[in-house]
Amino acid sequence: MNQIIEKILDHRSIRSFEDKPVTEEQIRTIVECAQAASTSSYIQAYSIIGVSNPEKKAQLAELAGPQTYVEKSAHVFVFCVDLHRHDIVAEMEGRDLSESIESTEQFMVGCIDAALAAQNAAIAAESMDLGICYIGGIRNNLHAVSEILNIPHRVLPLFALIIGHPKNRSEKKPRLPLANVYHENGYQADQQVFIEQLQAYNETISSYYDRRTKGKRKDTWTEQMANTLGKKSRMYMKEYVEGKGLKKR
Amino acid sequence: MNQIIEKILDHRSIRSFEDKPVTEEQIRTIVECAQAASTSSYIQAYSIIGVSNPEKKAQLAELAGPQTYVEKSAHVFVFCVDLHRHDIVAEMEGRDLSESIESTEQFMVGCIDAALAAQNAAIAAESMDLGICYIGGIRNNLHAVSEILNIPHRVLPLFALIIGHPKNRSEKKPRLPLANVYHENGYQADQQVFIEQLQAYNETISSYYDRRTKGKRKDTWTEQMANTLGKKSRMYMKEYVEGKGLKKR
Repeated sequence: MNQIIEKILDHRSIRSFEDKPVTEEQIRTIVECAQAASTSSYIQAYSIIGVSNPEKKAQLAELAGPQTYVEKSAHVFVFCVDLHRHDIVAEMEGRDLSESIESTEQFMVGCIDAALAAQNAAIAAESMDLGICYIGGIRNNLHAVSEILNIPHRVLPLFALIIGHPKNRSEKKPRLPLANVYHENGYQADQQVFIEQLQAYNETISSYYDRRTKGKRKDTWTEQMANTLGKKSRMYMKEYVEGKGLKKR
Repeated sequence: MNQIIEKILDHRSIRSFEDKPVTEEQIRTIVECAQAASTSSYIQAYSIIGVSNPEKKAQLAELAGPQTYVEKSAHVFVFCVDLHRHDIVAEMEGRDLSESIESTEQFMVGCIDAALAAQNAAIAAESMDLGICYIGGIRNNLHAVSEILNIPHRVLPLFALIIGHPKNRSEKKPRLPLANVYHENGYQADQQVFIEQLQAYNETISSYYDRRTKGKRKDTWTEQMANTLGKKSRMYMKEYVEGKGLKKR
């Protein structure tokens, strides 16, 4: 196992940071690494907003939960789907590209491009012994987030990636059984096998929480998922995304 | 600059492979690295189909372009948004979770989760000196791809990641100017500045192609984007994704 794979397998989300800045050079390197990721048909349909302003960080922390560790992190990167750039391309080239720009296909490309770039940024940060955490919570209120960050039409903040010098290292959370996620030459759709895999995983997760919380918590993965999805969170998203001129057709 | 960052910055897509297999252990490690990526609220809304069967590889290569290098790669990973698993969770927990499962929010989570996992897989493969290439071309015909890979309801193949031993190393393609992608504390929306950045980038790209093709090709990035987006590709996607029981509300 090489050093890169060791680093990748050692990942855990960090939610507690030292009061110590990251350097401009570190930020620049992280962004360059993000940009080095593959992009669908060279389209580069994403942008990154770096947030260092303490007031803005505090506002984002509040909107995302509140999640105070957003405020206490050394730097916040907000990854956005960006097809505003392609509106400007249309103008520069004297073309009407709106049907493509508003398509579900290009919206998916934007989500994928942004996430590939973000994971490069995450690994780059971790390679410098910084801790990272993804913050999907900014999607709680994209109206407010967009206002704080001056986000134009055709740009959608997807998630934040916060970085900083780790204070406490959390435990690694066990993932789904490999056989449930990885299928050979075709999807393994036998429902009985599927349920058995999830039951085995439930036992793993239940003992993980039991051990970690000294018996206070023993919920299974399927219980946790039923509760999470039962909440119907962020149901405004369809209308919001379409209002941004994305994924309309 | 550490070894991991060097590797990330040295990325280029590889479309020409030696006729030499990858090992089962390499495949397993790559999948484990994919699984180590962050996942939104622990939801793990993706699956990976590994394709080694030569007939299926040939069929995917044909559908994706044709792109013969898909067939000639050592292994194909197809990354999918997967909320089928959460249908089974609903059944196991006796809950109706369909509103969430069918939401735009959870579809975005699936796209993000799948892409974060894929980029970990890509870096893991590159760390073993394998070459990688993302294949968005499988989205040309998801009806056929889904049939070949036995894809159930609520699962959507997003892209493939092909790996193999590189034969030729291509040149790195220059990315958008950092200042056009990375914005500090708010989106830089001044249109004049934006256009100047894209004009400068156009010159970079035009000389890049000129040099690489010995004068045969000199197109700019904005021309290329206008042509790509002018084609209105994959406009069936909205209907197809919604037909899969995803992103319906």
